[in-house]
Amino acid sequence: MKIELENVKPQEIEAKSFEMITAELGDTPLIPGTEMIVKRCIHTSADFDYAKSLCFSEGAVEKARDAIRRGVSIVTDTQMAKAGINKRTLAKYGGEVHCFMSDEDVAQIAKENGTTRATACIDKAAAMGEEFIFAIGNAPTALVRLYELIKEDKIHPALIIGVPVGFVNVVQSKELIMETDVPYIVARGRKGGSNIAACICNALMYLDGRE
Amino acid sequence: MKIELENVKPQEIEAKSFEMITAELGDTPLIPGTEMIVKRCIHTSADFDYAKSLCFSEGAVEKARDAIRRGVSIVTDTQMAKAGINKRTLAKYGGEVHCFMSDEDVAQIAKENGTTRATACIDKAAAMGEEFIFAIGNAPTALVRLYELIKEDKIHPALIIGVPVGFVNVVQSKELIMETDVPYIVARGRKGGSNIAACICNALMYLDGRE
Repeated sequence: MKIELENVKPQEIEAKSFEMITAELGDTPLIPGTEMIVKRCIHTSADFDYAKSLCFSEGAVEKARDAIRRGVSIVTDTQMAKAGINKRTLAKYGGEVHCFMSDEDVAQIAKENGTTRATACIDKAAAMGEEFIFAIGNAPTALVRLYELIKEDKIHPALIIGVPVGFVNVVQSKELIMETDVPYIVARGRKGGSNIAACICNALMYLDGRE
Repeated sequence: MKIELENVKPQEIEAKSFEMITAELGDTPLIPGTEMIVKRCIHTSADFDYAKSLCFSEGAVEKARDAIRRGVSIVTDTQMAKAGINKRTLAKYGGEVHCFMSDEDVAQIAKENGTTRATACIDKAAAMGEEFIFAIGNAPTALVRLYELIKEDKIHPALIIGVPVGFVNVVQSKELIMETDVPYIVARGRKGGSNIAACICNALMYLDGRE
């Protein structure tokens, strides 16, 4: 078989990719205002399931953009997502990215309480008393703890990006978040990941045209 | 709808996830010796496509493990993959992880040559004259450059993990790598990603039982 490479210039690869995604989506219905977030998730994963699985609470995108503009920081549950979020762009708005997963106090608290470290990370964030965007790409237990603290009125996230991936309690944890009054962007079902969490954070920033 | 969480202890979540994956795979045929790599990719993505799309050159897993054991370092094309690779475990064997994407000389060379930074990264790695494992989760241009340098006998990778994700030349770049004599693990088709690249690196290390 002859393998033929397409002749696309480096600076045109992304635009060409988005053209292909738009063409393949055809008339798949997308919620107005969410299109670029959905397309970026497909760009990051080559998985068109996200056109159907991404769920947005009413006005989530505008609320998220407002939060970013006022300098709200992002808390994420993996070093991979932290690595993938465009920290330079976020810093222009005054925000930064936190991942507490490797913190010694988090390991200690998780051990004492018999929870996952992700659960302890959410407790740590809550104790800081600051408004955050939570970008959860790995641990459903982080979403479950967010749900509990929201119900107890102990945390008030600006946005929850709920896209953990996997098998045990992943589907359920996302449904729990969708029962709250907190703005959310959730990938319903089992799929998601650190890459998707980072991608959604970046997509929200790029909507302002800043890169 | 009542959402019921499964009661699984933190330290049992991973084992339970692998049980579910094994059960759902049923009698899907997997190449002997590659099972744990395939299952880890499914664990990382919740995407059973990897049971079919992952391709291994003859003896790739054993050759990869030998390379890791003799302290070969990993070169990857994203900071996300670098963040996801278990660097502490790799260090026990004497290896480290490089990502040159943010290096100033790479940006400069890419600009001068009109290539992607990923292409310039591969040139930089080749110039180091060291044996590497390449874990490519993002840039098909990195795979294309590897292919060219292999054909010119200018690079001799211990292994290529070829799992870029996307649309422009992604499918083709993977097919090119599978035409070489270099040991490879490739996710055929459009899917892959930094998370999959890191996952495969970790899966290879964990086969030795070291975590």
